[in-house]
Amino acid sequence: MRRVYLDYNATAPLLPEALEAALPYYTSVWGNASSIHRQGREARMAVEDAREHVARLIGVPNPLQLVFTSGGTEAINLAIRGYAYGNRTRGQHIITTHVEHPAVLDTCRTLEQRGFGLTYLPVDGLGRVDPDALAQSIHPQTILLTLIHGNHEVGTLQPLTDLVNVAHAHGVPVHVDAVQAVGRVPVDVVASGIDLLSLAGHKFGGPKGVGALYIRDGLGTTMQAVLRGGHQERDRRAGTEDVPSIVALGRACALMSQRLADEGKRLTRLRDHLEAGVLRRIAAVHPLGKGGERLPNTANLSFTGVKGEALVFNIDLLGVAVSTGASCSSRQGVPSQVLDAMGVSREVSEGSVRFSLGWGTTDEDIERVLDLLPSTVERLRLLSPWA
Amino acid sequence: MRRVYLDYNATAPLLPEALEAALPYYTSVWGNASSIHRQGREARMAVEDAREHVARLIGVPNPLQLVFTSGGTEAINLAIRGYAYGNRTRGQHIITTHVEHPAVLDTCRTLEQRGFGLTYLPVDGLGRVDPDALAQSIHPQTILLTLIHGNHEVGTLQPLTDLVNVAHAHGVPVHVDAVQAVGRVPVDVVASGIDLLSLAGHKFGGPKGVGALYIRDGLGTTMQAVLRGGHQERDRRAGTEDVPSIVALGRACALMSQRLADEGKRLTRLRDHLEAGVLRRIAAVHPLGKGGERLPNTANLSFTGVKGEALVFNIDLLGVAVSTGASCSSRQGVPSQVLDAMGVSREVSEGSVRFSLGWGTTDEDIERVLDLLPSTVERLRLLSPWA
Repeated sequence: MRRVYLDYNATAPLLPEALEAALPYYTSVWGNASSIHRQGREARMAVEDAREHVARLIGVPNPLQLVFTSGGTEAINLAIRGYAYGNRTRGQHIITTHVEHPAVLDTCRTLEQRGFGLTYLPVDGLGRVDPDALAQSIHPQTILLTLIHGNHEVGTLQPLTDLVNVAHAHGVPVHVDAVQAVGRVPVDVVASGIDLLSLAGHKFGGPKGVGALYIRDGLGTTMQAVLRGGHQERDRRAGTEDVPSIVALGRACALMSQRLADEGKRLTRLRDHLEAGVLRRIAAVHPLGKGGERLPNTANLSFTGVKGEALVFNIDLLGVAVSTGASCSSRQGVPSQVLDAMGVSREVSEGSVRFSLGWGTTDEDIERVLDLLPSTVERLRLLSPWA
Repeated sequence: MRRVYLDYNATAPLLPEALEAALPYYTSVWGNASSIHRQGREARMAVEDAREHVARLIGVPNPLQLVFTSGGTEAINLAIRGYAYGNRTRGQHIITTHVEHPAVLDTCRTLEQRGFGLTYLPVDGLGRVDPDALAQSIHPQTILLTLIHGNHEVGTLQPLTDLVNVAHAHGVPVHVDAVQAVGRVPVDVVASGIDLLSLAGHKFGGPKGVGALYIRDGLGTTMQAVLRGGHQERDRRAGTEDVPSIVALGRACALMSQRLADEGKRLTRLRDHLEAGVLRRIAAVHPLGKGGERLPNTANLSFTGVKGEALVFNIDLLGVAVSTGASCSSRQGVPSQVLDAMGVSREVSEGSVRFSLGWGTTDEDIERVLDLLPSTVERLRLLSPWA
């Protein structure tokens, strides 16, 4: 039987068109994009063509403002550390939030160990930062605000334009971790006034192992590279370009530029149907992060009297892949910092399961989950020492 | 007509078996290797299986001593910076050589800017470091020797065991940049006493965008991660694992474990035939780096009265891809630091071209180059203002 995969926020399957686009760069145009011979120049053209497709998806005016990286984590490390160390003489205070991905939080912790001051902004019950709280946290030493756009666990979208406006009014540039947002909701770096933006390929149908960082003109001169070596990516990121993965990312971006609006509607409909169906069929379920602007593909539901991990394991045995919180920390068994910050009680947090949909998700997938979930939850509740 | 590709030191085509091994991880087992559901566990098993193949190729006793990275550059950055910052309290002096790859040299320059002392060891006419010179450069503040194994421009192999022995006699651990050596000559980290070793997939038939760092047990606890975020790679390298590329790297390593001895002989024969043929057919050619132990696949020949770049362009038009020096700096037009350090005159250096062979190179390829090269060199010499 076909398995159901509802863990797109962990990773998405590669779009077949993206794989098809990449294959010639494995089998025939295998050159090093820095080589000056024909094999190299053909690889270079493919990389620059892909850069244009990525730029178009997120409204980057000049594709050379994009730096290809090995993924979202590297893009985020380059954005935050590259900017922080490059601007250390201007100030040593950085603002972020309690609902960031570990790639941001761990990078910020490293900066704290090196003498930077960090402010972690609180969020409301839906995971949103209050622009007034941001305004109050800015002081003359503040050099950067780093902010997640679409939350990986609950899907909450920040009031981005309001927050960017507050930061800019105080002369503070903004890095946006848009790893979960790009390819799922419209993103326009110019319209939103974003200074730095990180994205990853594998959350929306590009390959793993590739991502990009947008760097607004003017900021680039004060950035420090994280990976040192050759002159690739205009000295901003050393290392032989992963041409096939970059080409596949470009193709995925080109497809998403066309499909974004329709896919957004389709996923919202499926996600809402899933959420409503669960709430109708199963008692004592708390939807988390529901009620404000959010990613169209994400639902986070807490089942009273059930451990989220137990539900993940048991429904996996029935052929359905879902997740508790971030896959990056799912093996650690620590409670969700995101839900903590939203004021969700420990018990509700431990009962929470994330359902995240994507390009391959069908109506049948959702019906299957709605069929299987009630009896699974019921069984776990009967076994639960809490029940 | 089939093009001839003799630029394997820039990058190698992917082995068909490696691509075949990777494809299922694009099309069906696409999970995030950190996810706990079946899709994730299958991806995890593939990653760990690949880790064993990489370990076997270079004699790593425990595969968990390997950290997968986005390539050779990241592995080198992690090795040198990770070790340097992790051991800064023990000392701030690092020893390297004048014939390193830019990934090492640029990383070392960054450390110099942060207060570390660097010693760059000289080399002899073949590019080899003298163990006595190494011994004299070590002092109580020395915490690391970082050394290229097979040189990317001339193929020279360092007297590795002698150099490691000298370093260890003074209690100094050794990082080996084996990016050009792994998959081409036998490498055994235990037999050679190597403490840290960097490798890349794409030099010997694995994909671009993936590499690995070997970290000897005991060193790991004093390493600092370069990319921060999730708990992947036992907290030594954050970021979603690039499962298909890792699988392909593993397959390439498994194949090279079987083929290394035969391929070494075959490439030595082809390379020697190329070198002898050029020297016989063309006057005033200087072989560089010839005479000592070297990579079986690399020849570096300088053609008096010819600019290396002009030869690369002209022979490319005839369907033959070769290179001047390192592709990473080939667009910069700067003279080769490696050849400078070997005492090669500027004129000879500017006339040098690198021919690097690999798994796809055939006897016919070499004959074709031997047919085309004399008339091309003759024509360029007639046009040359130097002639």
